[in-house]
Amino acid sequence: MSSPNNREFFSVLTVSAAVAGFRPGRRTPTENVALGEALGRVPSEPVRAPHDLPGFPRSTVDGFAVRAADTYGASDGLPGYLEVLGAVQMGMTADVELRSCGALAIPTGGMMPVGADAVVMIEHTSEAMAGTIEIHRAVAPGEGLVRGDEDAKSGDELTRAGRPLRPHDLGLLASAGVTTVRVHARPRVAILSTGDEVVPYECAELLPGQVRDACALPIAALVREAGGEPVPCGIVPDDPEALREALLGAMTGSDLIVITAGSSVGARDETAGVVASLGEPGIFCHGLALQPGKPTLLAQCGDVPIIGLPGNPRSALVVFRLIGSPLVRLVGGWEAPVHEPVVRARLSRDLPSVAGRLDVVQVRLLDGLAEPIFGKSALLSMLVEADGYLTVPEPATGLDEGADVEVTLYR
Amino acid sequence: MSSPNNREFFSVLTVSAAVAGFRPGRRTPTENVALGEALGRVPSEPVRAPHDLPGFPRSTVDGFAVRAADTYGASDGLPGYLEVLGAVQMGMTADVELRSCGALAIPTGGMMPVGADAVVMIEHTSEAMAGTIEIHRAVAPGEGLVRGDEDAKSGDELTRAGRPLRPHDLGLLASAGVTTVRVHARPRVAILSTGDEVVPYECAELLPGQVRDACALPIAALVREAGGEPVPCGIVPDDPEALREALLGAMTGSDLIVITAGSSVGARDETAGVVASLGEPGIFCHGLALQPGKPTLLAQCGDVPIIGLPGNPRSALVVFRLIGSPLVRLVGGWEAPVHEPVVRARLSRDLPSVAGRLDVVQVRLLDGLAEPIFGKSALLSMLVEADGYLTVPEPATGLDEGADVEVTLYR
Repeated sequence: MSSPNNREFFSVLTVSAAVAGFRPGRRTPTENVALGEALGRVPSEPVRAPHDLPGFPRSTVDGFAVRAADTYGASDGLPGYLEVLGAVQMGMTADVELRSCGALAIPTGGMMPVGADAVVMIEHTSEAMAGTIEIHRAVAPGEGLVRGDEDAKSGDELTRAGRPLRPHDLGLLASAGVTTVRVHARPRVAILSTGDEVVPYECAELLPGQVRDACALPIAALVREAGGEPVPCGIVPDDPEALREALLGAMTGSDLIVITAGSSVGARDETAGVVASLGEPGIFCHGLALQPGKPTLLAQCGDVPIIGLPGNPRSALVVFRLIGSPLVRLVGGWEAPVHEPVVRARLSRDLPSVAGRLDVVQVRLLDGLAEPIFGKSALLSMLVEADGYLTVPEPATGLDEGADVEVTLYR
Repeated sequence: MSSPNNREFFSVLTVSAAVAGFRPGRRTPTENVALGEALGRVPSEPVRAPHDLPGFPRSTVDGFAVRAADTYGASDGLPGYLEVLGAVQMGMTADVELRSCGALAIPTGGMMPVGADAVVMIEHTSEAMAGTIEIHRAVAPGEGLVRGDEDAKSGDELTRAGRPLRPHDLGLLASAGVTTVRVHARPRVAILSTGDEVVPYECAELLPGQVRDACALPIAALVREAGGEPVPCGIVPDDPEALREALLGAMTGSDLIVITAGSSVGARDETAGVVASLGEPGIFCHGLALQPGKPTLLAQCGDVPIIGLPGNPRSALVVFRLIGSPLVRLVGGWEAPVHEPVVRARLSRDLPSVAGRLDVVQVRLLDGLAEPIFGKSALLSMLVEADGYLTVPEPATGLDEGADVEVTLYR
């Protein structure tokens, strides 16, 4: 077993310094996807309108297409009179041109006939006699319609690069007839579990001392949520040669490598040693001023970023949310801010903390109170019980009962 | 064209009354899914621990497994001395039983040997001579370890029914060796577009008066986000018989039907008429006190809920987020609260509104200011420009410049 001196991490960073400083340059290549598969994908270039949208002037109400000037002065007391020349059919050009003192019935969404510049709502008309309507309210030019380029002009940017496509973005692109979008490929994230005691979770019967792999599956889920494609690489024993071989294999074809490290100091040191041997620039930091999650390794070998997660499952998942998910997004070309659901609450009790360290504390929420859940880093049930988590920032030595806190909700 | 009287909606409800009152009883059947595919799925029953977790007492530190009593009184000034009897190997039973005044080296995660009840951290030990260590700090029984049932006892509820599985839930289930989960089937949501003017979005060249289907794709995306399985049913012309036939077809095998209604009053009335003819209990409301989104239809035919959305794409998407997504979740067995990301901001200008109506207003966010985006219900670009939306509640007649507002962020 190592002597106490070997336990010192050789470069412990604050989480904010790590997030700010560890910015690998690797970006996934681009590819075309069908619009129907593009939800959440990250465009690598802006998509521009191939033509004006909606492409022709459309009525926005049910009523009568008119020349606005023909309605001036019309009121309930002194209605104007217009001759009904016909009706616009949905989805067709009007076959009649509007002339002065005429009107064409038009449904919402109908194409404005030539010669008309406004639509009077049907509520502001009445039938005077067969073929003639009374107009009870004047309309201005442009009223009751959208212009042919009002949703977008030809060449306008419809969606921007670097922001994942949202449902309504797909709607605007569909209305423009865009059928494929150029996007960043999903980052391929290799997930290696390590540890002599770890067996696949599908293992029904355990031998004494064995535990099932509790990390690979939730990390894969978090990778998917961040837009990546998890590549499960199985379980590697606590053996430097085996780990080296597995990592070399994973580096080919992966955009990012995640190692759930063995949790003993020996296993941690071995992981760091093997990662350092894989190539320049090597280890960025080994250790974060973070509770739970201190024994975290960040490195880059060639242009492949590598994250070594702590061995305790709860620590590993806390670290992956803080550091791993943003890295997956970065490599995948994501440039927009990420919005997590948060709620404000009052802290139910004093929460001690050590200055200089970020504390991530799971909480239950009840009636506006955030109740911290205390327990060991090895326990996953604490995460499952939690509604979310709060952080005690690095300079603080704790938070007082009743403090106003922001809780990020797990989902 | 219909007379003004036909324009009256025969039952306009507030959004809150509609959401509270329209609670179809239909739930999807249950099915088994593999744990690896269970992210976001909704368990139909609690999952219980098949055995204690982690299943055996484990060290949580690197150090020495001891009898706590043998360390009592130990300090830096007056260390205790223990004989090192061997080392616990990761993933194996210790082959030596601990006896009084003995210690076994143990890594984090190692199985506690028989006879030991605590672990002294390696930092609190030093080597006295070959085979003997000094103990500089006393430990209490249970210190430095997790009990064999500390993460969960056999039979404990690991995950609850009705709450979609989160990444860490999968982790706890994996550690318990759960390989399949009983979940609600994804609700199959039929999506029918209607309108003589509407053509598929893949259509490259439009005839005058035609528009592409801008709703089916974003609605399908929102259905997926709510845990459903969209079933695109194509475009139906404004013809009651064709609509009736399409709806009858969709009712078989769908858990929910969404119609993006034609936007003209004639088309709306026809849709309502056809829906009413399909069976009891029929139409729940036709019209919401909502801007945009008034011409919304809620109905139930047999046990299949039907939502008729407004014809304007922006209105349709606003309504689907407010009413449709919650219905998809309800039918899919989702019972947990839904958390949307929100931020607080100050309103950049006065925002007028009509009392008795819920206003959904798209906003841009800049430096803590929420700037309303005004425009016609027909415009989708407003949604794409928006960072999120705020609502002006039903009793309010508007909001003042500088008001503290909560903005729900689009993602």
